[in-house]
Amino acid sequence: MTLDDLQALIDKMYSDKDRARGTPATFLWLVEEIGELASVLREGTQEQKEDEFADVVAWMVTLANVNNVNLTKALEDKYGKGCPGCGHLVCTCDTKP
Amino acid sequence: MTLDDLQALIDKMYSDKDRARGTPATFLWLVEEIGELASVLREGTQEQKEDEFADVVAWMVTLANVNNVNLTKALEDKYGKGCPGCGHLVCTCDTKP
Repeated sequence: MTLDDLQALIDKMYSDKDRARGTPATFLWLVEEIGELASVLREGTQEQKEDEFADVVAWMVTLANVNNVNLTKALEDKYGKGCPGCGHLVCTCDTKP
Repeated sequence: MTLDDLQALIDKMYSDKDRARGTPATFLWLVEEIGELASVLREGTQEQKEDEFADVVAWMVTLANVNNVNLTKALEDKYGKGCPGCGHLVCTCDTKP
């Protein structure tokens, strides 16, 4: 699955509601899902973790769609040439432990 | 770019640090990036939004890697057959406005 496929799938599934809801309310949903992810990371099964990761990514993609951000371009620009901190393909930054 | 490519790229770039840092400290970084995204969504340029979306997705992928979650499988299982709420390809759920 490509990121473009995923953005198109989520757009088809939810775009009418998403654009009507807008950025602030969509962000609220994302953060609610981040909270659910925290919960299963702490004490969930592997299946529950997969389920919550899917939801968080789906809401991230929704939020990107609402803001007309192409995630493939965003990621290639930032990480496509290596770590944005040190420039190496295998990060050697001293910070971010 | 496929999600598998992205997981492999982030794994190559950061996996040594990521696995040493572990889930709780990685989650903290993710939430910090979520905060930065909130800031640029409120008053940033399109370029700044792209930059922060890239960081949030990268930290999500890092967290998935640390937890041995394949995002492609997770998303296909949850969203591959339509909206998990109503089952339709174009969501008709009454909830989640």
